[in-house]
Amino acid sequence: LSGSESSFITDLIDLNTGFPTVVLHEDDAKALGVTFGSRVRVVKGDRSATASVITSRTMVRRGSILVTPDLSSDLKLSREDRVQVKPISITAGYMALQKRLRGERLDYDEMLAIVRDVATGSFSEAEIATFLVSQLFVELSEDELHNLIRAMVETGSKIVFEEPVYDVHSIGGVPGNGKVALLTVPIVASTGLLIPKTSSRAITSAAGTADIVEVLARVEFTPSELKEIALKTRGTLVWGGSLNLAPADDIFVAIERKLNIDPWHQMVASILAKKVAMDVSNLVVDIPVGRKAKVEDIRHAERLAGLFVNQAAKLNMNIKVAITYGGQPIGVTIGPALEAREALETLMNKSGRKSLVDKALYLAGLILELSGKVPHGAGFEVAKDLFMKGRAYDKFREIIEAQGGNPNVKPDDIPIGEHKAVLYSPAEGAVTHIDNGVLLAAARAAGAPFDKGAGIVLHAKIGYRVSKGDPLLTIYSSSSVRLESALNLLTMNPPIVVEGMLIKTYP
Amino acid sequence: LSGSESSFITDLIDLNTGFPTVVLHEDDAKALGVTFGSRVRVVKGDRSATASVITSRTMVRRGSILVTPDLSSDLKLSREDRVQVKPISITAGYMALQKRLRGERLDYDEMLAIVRDVATGSFSEAEIATFLVSQLFVELSEDELHNLIRAMVETGSKIVFEEPVYDVHSIGGVPGNGKVALLTVPIVASTGLLIPKTSSRAITSAAGTADIVEVLARVEFTPSELKEIALKTRGTLVWGGSLNLAPADDIFVAIERKLNIDPWHQMVASILAKKVAMDVSNLVVDIPVGRKAKVEDIRHAERLAGLFVNQAAKLNMNIKVAITYGGQPIGVTIGPALEAREALETLMNKSGRKSLVDKALYLAGLILELSGKVPHGAGFEVAKDLFMKGRAYDKFREIIEAQGGNPNVKPDDIPIGEHKAVLYSPAEGAVTHIDNGVLLAAARAAGAPFDKGAGIVLHAKIGYRVSKGDPLLTIYSSSSVRLESALNLLTMNPPIVVEGMLIKTYP
Repeated sequence: LSGSESSFITDLIDLNTGFPTVVLHEDDAKALGVTFGSRVRVVKGDRSATASVITSRTMVRRGSILVTPDLSSDLKLSREDRVQVKPISITAGYMALQKRLRGERLDYDEMLAIVRDVATGSFSEAEIATFLVSQLFVELSEDELHNLIRAMVETGSKIVFEEPVYDVHSIGGVPGNGKVALLTVPIVASTGLLIPKTSSRAITSAAGTADIVEVLARVEFTPSELKEIALKTRGTLVWGGSLNLAPADDIFVAIERKLNIDPWHQMVASILAKKVAMDVSNLVVDIPVGRKAKVEDIRHAERLAGLFVNQAAKLNMNIKVAITYGGQPIGVTIGPALEAREALETLMNKSGRKSLVDKALYLAGLILELSGKVPHGAGFEVAKDLFMKGRAYDKFREIIEAQGGNPNVKPDDIPIGEHKAVLYSPAEGAVTHIDNGVLLAAARAAGAPFDKGAGIVLHAKIGYRVSKGDPLLTIYSSSSVRLESALNLLTMNPPIVVEGMLIKTYP
Repeated sequence: LSGSESSFITDLIDLNTGFPTVVLHEDDAKALGVTFGSRVRVVKGDRSATASVITSRTMVRRGSILVTPDLSSDLKLSREDRVQVKPISITAGYMALQKRLRGERLDYDEMLAIVRDVATGSFSEAEIATFLVSQLFVELSEDELHNLIRAMVETGSKIVFEEPVYDVHSIGGVPGNGKVALLTVPIVASTGLLIPKTSSRAITSAAGTADIVEVLARVEFTPSELKEIALKTRGTLVWGGSLNLAPADDIFVAIERKLNIDPWHQMVASILAKKVAMDVSNLVVDIPVGRKAKVEDIRHAERLAGLFVNQAAKLNMNIKVAITYGGQPIGVTIGPALEAREALETLMNKSGRKSLVDKALYLAGLILELSGKVPHGAGFEVAKDLFMKGRAYDKFREIIEAQGGNPNVKPDDIPIGEHKAVLYSPAEGAVTHIDNGVLLAAARAAGAPFDKGAGIVLHAKIGYRVSKGDPLLTIYSSSSVRLESALNLLTMNPPIVVEGMLIKTYP
């Protein structure tokens, strides 16, 4: 009802609240009909941005506002600029959210209104949480999911290529999985297919692909740099976060992490929206299944695969979904530097752990099959051939060099944490179980992914026979304090279960 | 995993973010493992409080923190005090919330953990929203609701009386309803029953009981003042907000308003927890039913009544639930001063609008029946007798005087908005519908409840016959600008529908 709006003189305040913020005099806030925590629209010329309100009686004069660095950079504000401040009333996204809470379905315009309110910061945390939590109870319909994907693409940047774009994406959730792309991308690129892969940094894992590659080369590029590198090398291994692809996603993910929830449809939207924004027309999706992975049983994996297939069809995207074994780590390393070492070693030696090499070859093979260059069923063998002939390693070196790294780097050149400790087997027997969750927690406690040298090397995996006192794993960290804390965690929750024939004795 | 904790020197910063807040140097924040928006525990001696984090590179030195006024007053901090700051890790409430999202039921300890995290500010908006939104999809069970009520009582203050306590509570939602208690409470108190009524201020309505009484007397008291007044007059009409009864409720309500949701079980918990905290053992609950009321049909009202009855039984509270007509406003006034005038006039004249008088007498009668002093079915007549003999008015004057007001105040002494406008009937006919929602929105647009003199007087209600040009309502405001905006709203959405025999003509 209120159409109030006022003109203010700006000054700067160096506070970081996580969100563009203005400090208003309490009386000005009252006059505008807003209070601390309200959202307002700040307008300067033809630029405007949403900001959160903090009030004060003494830090700011009436008629002036203090603006935080993120807001001043969004609006190119300096001291003594003049801006308009308007309260934000009920938005279209708010109305759409109410509709979803009444159990009704949302059309494209409504979904776009929600995503736009998220992307512009008009939605508060509570509203974003409401949208996400509603999905836990009433899943998005296929149509809603399609609308969400389109809306997420629409509210971000797009990168356009003039030829078919290929990509491979793992939903993750298994330790050691981030390094697989360091093999698949060069294999595919070595055939001339265009695979400009953008990856995330670790969110809940110990090392995302971008964290691992960053040990060897730069991963942050502008869209035009990315395009230039991709067209030259046919493949990239960069961080997607700086490209403004489906930017609402980062905000959704931050709230999902806070609440420790991960609605499936939102995950599918997140992955596919970023692919559409990157112009991907041919995609292989990897769903690892296993205890403590994101997807714990095959029935769920199949449902999720169905969602991907249906949505890709609506987006005119060719897709193959691979359900893979995720019951224990991929390869034997967990953590950015350790995984970079293992991937590099595997590429150079043309051999490595079966869980790493086979997975990479299967996924690369599926992409080759999608392209039509290779007949159905022959992808694995063609990929293997490229890998064994060193074509993958050559392409990898090209990519690393194009991204500003040293193509001649050797595994031992890569620094790892100087503090380490070894966990030994308490008994003779076979390894019957490895707890992904504990390994992940320990690697993070040791400092991964921020401490690049932190992580774990496994000396035994499921099915290995060990003797009492054999080493089971080594844990690394750059900090002795963090090493200690990670070691405590491992000691209290043994992650590698060794069972002999004798299970238990009775008095 | 991190046990980090550090000692800081305090300085003050005059910012109001709506929540106790500390400004940390970015490097200190990183060392503590927190960032903007994180919650931390600030400890000084044996006091501690939860605070939200803002970071800065230049506003604060390393080793120092800036604290906002609310935090410094909670912890009695001054400049150059030394405090400990600890990151808050996963709380028991967080674990319980995860459990609810997995579809599991919460026991008392888990519900208490959630409510405690809400009351102490350990939960963010997103977490509170998650708890509330989950209820829209998976209602609380009767056991969970009972646990929630007990937890809300447990985390606040209690006021104990040495005799049975009576109370009446309306779930609201109908314009003009706030003034009913100005009749019921004195009727009941005049019989000697103890009815220390605490009310809310308007949240979404145009006038809560506390807003109306505040026109005539003070409504904010300490618990001991409240008790003293109640024991002297047998009845009170005060604001419950300053008594720290079930304080988590205010936080829940703030998020519910933001999201425009009102989960029923949460409403029942909110009402009953405050009653238990006030030692109420005999309660009458009023559920108005009608278009645009909180409850729109009788079937829903019956379900809600069942919830109240079951929960009261678990709390050993005697209860009567009255389902009342809420299809149009109660009495003819909406807004604090106008409603105070109508209630006072009705008490003095021993007569008034049937919707007001009959409702008050029925509710008072039910309380008298609950007490056993009056046989079942005779309550209305006994209440009517007390009202007609002026006993209610005498008691009302006593209460107003005890609460610091003028017992001799006359209706015309009460100031109302100096700006007014009249809405006239566009046709001859009968009033067939009154839109509660539009009246409420218009009264609020005119300034109610903050502008005490703002509001509406109805000149016609459902069933009245009017001629073309007859006045339908008068709207008041202390501001000509707000009056204009309220009038626009009324003109665009006529709230009083007059229909003659002729409904429509064709070419």
